[in-house]
Amino acid sequence: MRDWNSQKKNKEARLARAATFCQGKQVAAAEIGKLLAAVIEPGDRLCIEGNNQKQADFLAAELARLDPAQVHDLHIVQSVLSLPTHLDVFERGIASKLDFSFSGPQAARLARLLGSGQLKIGAIHTYLELFGRYFTDLTPRVSLVCAQAADRAGNLYTGGNTEDTPVIVEATAFRQGIVIAQVNEIVDVLPRVDIPADWVDFTVKSPKPHYIEPLFTRDPAQISEIQILMAMMAIKGIYAEYGVTRLNHGIGFDTAAIELILPTYAESLGLKGKIATHWALNPHPALIPAIEAGFVESVHCFGSELGMDAYIRARSDVFFTGPDGSMRSNRALSQTAGLYACDMFIGSTLQIDLQGNSSTATLGRIAGFGGAPNMGSDARGRRHGSKAWLKAGQEASTGSMPRGRKLVVQMVETFREHMAPAFVEELDAWKLAESAGLDLPPVMIYGDDVTHIVTEEGIANLLLCRTPEEREQAIRGVAGYTSVGLDRDKAMVENLRDRGIIRRAADLGVDVTLATRDLLAAKSMKDLVRASKGLYNPPARFRNW
Amino acid sequence: MRDWNSQKKNKEARLARAATFCQGKQVAAAEIGKLLAAVIEPGDRLCIEGNNQKQADFLAAELARLDPAQVHDLHIVQSVLSLPTHLDVFERGIASKLDFSFSGPQAARLARLLGSGQLKIGAIHTYLELFGRYFTDLTPRVSLVCAQAADRAGNLYTGGNTEDTPVIVEATAFRQGIVIAQVNEIVDVLPRVDIPADWVDFTVKSPKPHYIEPLFTRDPAQISEIQILMAMMAIKGIYAEYGVTRLNHGIGFDTAAIELILPTYAESLGLKGKIATHWALNPHPALIPAIEAGFVESVHCFGSELGMDAYIRARSDVFFTGPDGSMRSNRALSQTAGLYACDMFIGSTLQIDLQGNSSTATLGRIAGFGGAPNMGSDARGRRHGSKAWLKAGQEASTGSMPRGRKLVVQMVETFREHMAPAFVEELDAWKLAESAGLDLPPVMIYGDDVTHIVTEEGIANLLLCRTPEEREQAIRGVAGYTSVGLDRDKAMVENLRDRGIIRRAADLGVDVTLATRDLLAAKSMKDLVRASKGLYNPPARFRNW
Repeated sequence: MRDWNSQKKNKEARLARAATFCQGKQVAAAEIGKLLAAVIEPGDRLCIEGNNQKQADFLAAELARLDPAQVHDLHIVQSVLSLPTHLDVFERGIASKLDFSFSGPQAARLARLLGSGQLKIGAIHTYLELFGRYFTDLTPRVSLVCAQAADRAGNLYTGGNTEDTPVIVEATAFRQGIVIAQVNEIVDVLPRVDIPADWVDFTVKSPKPHYIEPLFTRDPAQISEIQILMAMMAIKGIYAEYGVTRLNHGIGFDTAAIELILPTYAESLGLKGKIATHWALNPHPALIPAIEAGFVESVHCFGSELGMDAYIRARSDVFFTGPDGSMRSNRALSQTAGLYACDMFIGSTLQIDLQGNSSTATLGRIAGFGGAPNMGSDARGRRHGSKAWLKAGQEASTGSMPRGRKLVVQMVETFREHMAPAFVEELDAWKLAESAGLDLPPVMIYGDDVTHIVTEEGIANLLLCRTPEEREQAIRGVAGYTSVGLDRDKAMVENLRDRGIIRRAADLGVDVTLATRDLLAAKSMKDLVRASKGLYNPPARFRNW
Repeated sequence: MRDWNSQKKNKEARLARAATFCQGKQVAAAEIGKLLAAVIEPGDRLCIEGNNQKQADFLAAELARLDPAQVHDLHIVQSVLSLPTHLDVFERGIASKLDFSFSGPQAARLARLLGSGQLKIGAIHTYLELFGRYFTDLTPRVSLVCAQAADRAGNLYTGGNTEDTPVIVEATAFRQGIVIAQVNEIVDVLPRVDIPADWVDFTVKSPKPHYIEPLFTRDPAQISEIQILMAMMAIKGIYAEYGVTRLNHGIGFDTAAIELILPTYAESLGLKGKIATHWALNPHPALIPAIEAGFVESVHCFGSELGMDAYIRARSDVFFTGPDGSMRSNRALSQTAGLYACDMFIGSTLQIDLQGNSSTATLGRIAGFGGAPNMGSDARGRRHGSKAWLKAGQEASTGSMPRGRKLVVQMVETFREHMAPAFVEELDAWKLAESAGLDLPPVMIYGDDVTHIVTEEGIANLLLCRTPEEREQAIRGVAGYTSVGLDRDKAMVENLRDRGIIRRAADLGVDVTLATRDLLAAKSMKDLVRASKGLYNPPARFRNW
């Protein structure tokens, strides 16, 4: 007779082993190592809450200190690897297999560990894919999560940085797994309940507050006039042209420039209320002037951003906040909004090839994808219409069955730092795939999903290209003085320009003399603070006054 | 000075008006009409929890009884319209605009109301799209939801039919909206908390338990031998060939037949553990024999199914269940798993055209899409590999950049009831779009997302077709004696068969003499109950013994 409740019984056995190290659900910080050793079994699938921003850093460090003779062969299923301890577990022989989404700061070390055979990679995912697998074949057996506070019953308050917590806990708790939460404080009454105590097995007050990274803060002082020119072209040639109201911006200075000229340039074009009204976006400080100017109706966030708490509380008409006033973010739901409810994704990349494939992969670094491929792809399952989506679909139409199309815009200067060209004949992703034994080259956004490429030379509308040759020349035609750009077929590029497939600033009626830093609604961090009426409180490293 | 917290203040004003009709968060059933009139304002966006299965029927009926002189011009944002009261609000002038996903049983009346100008449709969505818009531009101001029980503080227990509740409540509660829950009982201590009380404004015990529809129950007695043959071909020609482990099945007898021959036919092919191990699926009773045979490792559910509760409780290794033993479903997360974590969607349709576009639309009925287009489309943002996904991608490959591909399979008998052909030159969706003024023909699954078509005549692998002509002939080549099938180019079809693009039962090594009802692991509802060891308790209408 098969036992159909073996996981449940196994969980009970683990909890019984843990009983001496806890009081009810509460575990003392000094006991957490023993508790982890008691509840984790070799071969477990284990999730450490590594979000984009907040980190279960105390639990990650304690896990990495366990005895590999006792706890080994863990299969880590974790969205972001950002702390050294996230890789220490592999180096120390505690974990052996990894399924993940993003490893930005640890990308080079991850590649080395892979090369030395100290870890095996299951697959590299986007966030939503990994979350989906939490409910199919990669459900965590133990999850180490992170919250602002717990009450004595074990209810959790995540505050503004809810991020991945709900999806991790739901998958684990309802498949008889064990959920352990590190919290900054244990209180009698929580400001609000974000995660019910029924879903949580243990809480531990960490010796110091969890680490949090201000990943989405960009100092306006670093925005160049070329970026401002590109932002102007994007607004006039794409936002206005398609009437894009629901959107997501990638991370970086290119899109920060757009955010900062909404209240100036876009306002002067009469676009307030007509573009960029509804966002799936982290609370970018660079968006403050546009919010204050009344451009923005709503922002739903994947996570929060350091220093934005008081501003968000004071702008509850714009942000999703709880009865306590603090924000509720939710990465899974905001990614869903970004995928299906947004008409446009616009972001930057490192390299674009002649088919329009783009990648941030570089040799010797396995950085993963994060959320960009999810939002930077045509949502083929979408069925509801909007002006932007239907117009893009009409432009792309080749077959007899009409359909809509998501706008996916890549925005790059033709040369990056150190004169590295953004346009290349072959992506570095190919070499990385070969050296790291990946199934496919790690492409961030596939060429056939990209609709527009914006550079300082103009906008290429790939939707209107009818052959691979036209597409290649449209890309070459905005690739400037890179060798890809220099090798253009000039006659064909001029023909594409005549047909409106390539548009220069002049074609768009963009006055390049306006492309100065004077166009920025905030030119510095201090300006952002001022725009926020003193509510935005930037982290120390961004304070230079 | 703009008021940046106007929604919060407006909510407070609504709650103040409601204060005389409630005690704390509890509202007496007799007072609910007055409470609704007090908290709803003209023009509000309002969500009635109409799930696929459970229905906030009491609140829907009370809403429909309000005075349209007081409450009018509501904008209903609701995933499923299935009860007459869901349309009564339009007929009575209480609501005027509708954004929705699915209206199955009300599709004809919806078309009439649209025709008479009594409602305007914003757009028709899939579930995930509408959920995404709840967090962007269609956030409900008031939501009327449904749970099994509440405690006195207002915490909710949804039991197995969690469905849409978390996503509706999260969007509404955190944007200063009002959440009203009808519950079957109010208790001192809930079996578990599914929705924290902080997210809920009012609870009302409804006079009778909420309505629930056993939408996914199929009586094995009605499965035909043609369906069994098709199921055999699908298993051998697709499931086994691609090694499909993670999948979603559509609703209907065609896929029920597959579920019921897993423990017989698939077992005989040595496929146990190699296919169909991880599911995003409602708890289909037809899956019981496969679960009992050890085929199935996990099932995550969109919602529950009537009569399956005790079985699910007793199989916690397979289903996602809470500490109380009952299931936790979640439509948003299961749809995410279906989109991104599943290698295959297989389902039926009413019509397929020569490009492979399929639709369930018929003239005079605006039925919407539900979840099929989401799962029945290539997830272009997916980046993690699997055997099935990589193989499908290789077969489809035409460009230089390799990528994976989701398997999207349409399974139809060439003639439906009343000899209506499943293959047509033009979908009825075109006429419906014209008559109802829709932006696009309501296509369920687009032809370029379909990878295989299975009929009793064989399997057409559209991935391998290299031209539109080949694609058309591949479709004609499995379209049997429909006029589309009869008009095939016989030489070209034979060529496609030689190349393995079309495969007949004989080509697949499928022994058609085995295609009898003896192959079904359960031939009746009673067999399903027996297979479940008496744990499955079918609704009365399915009990014929």
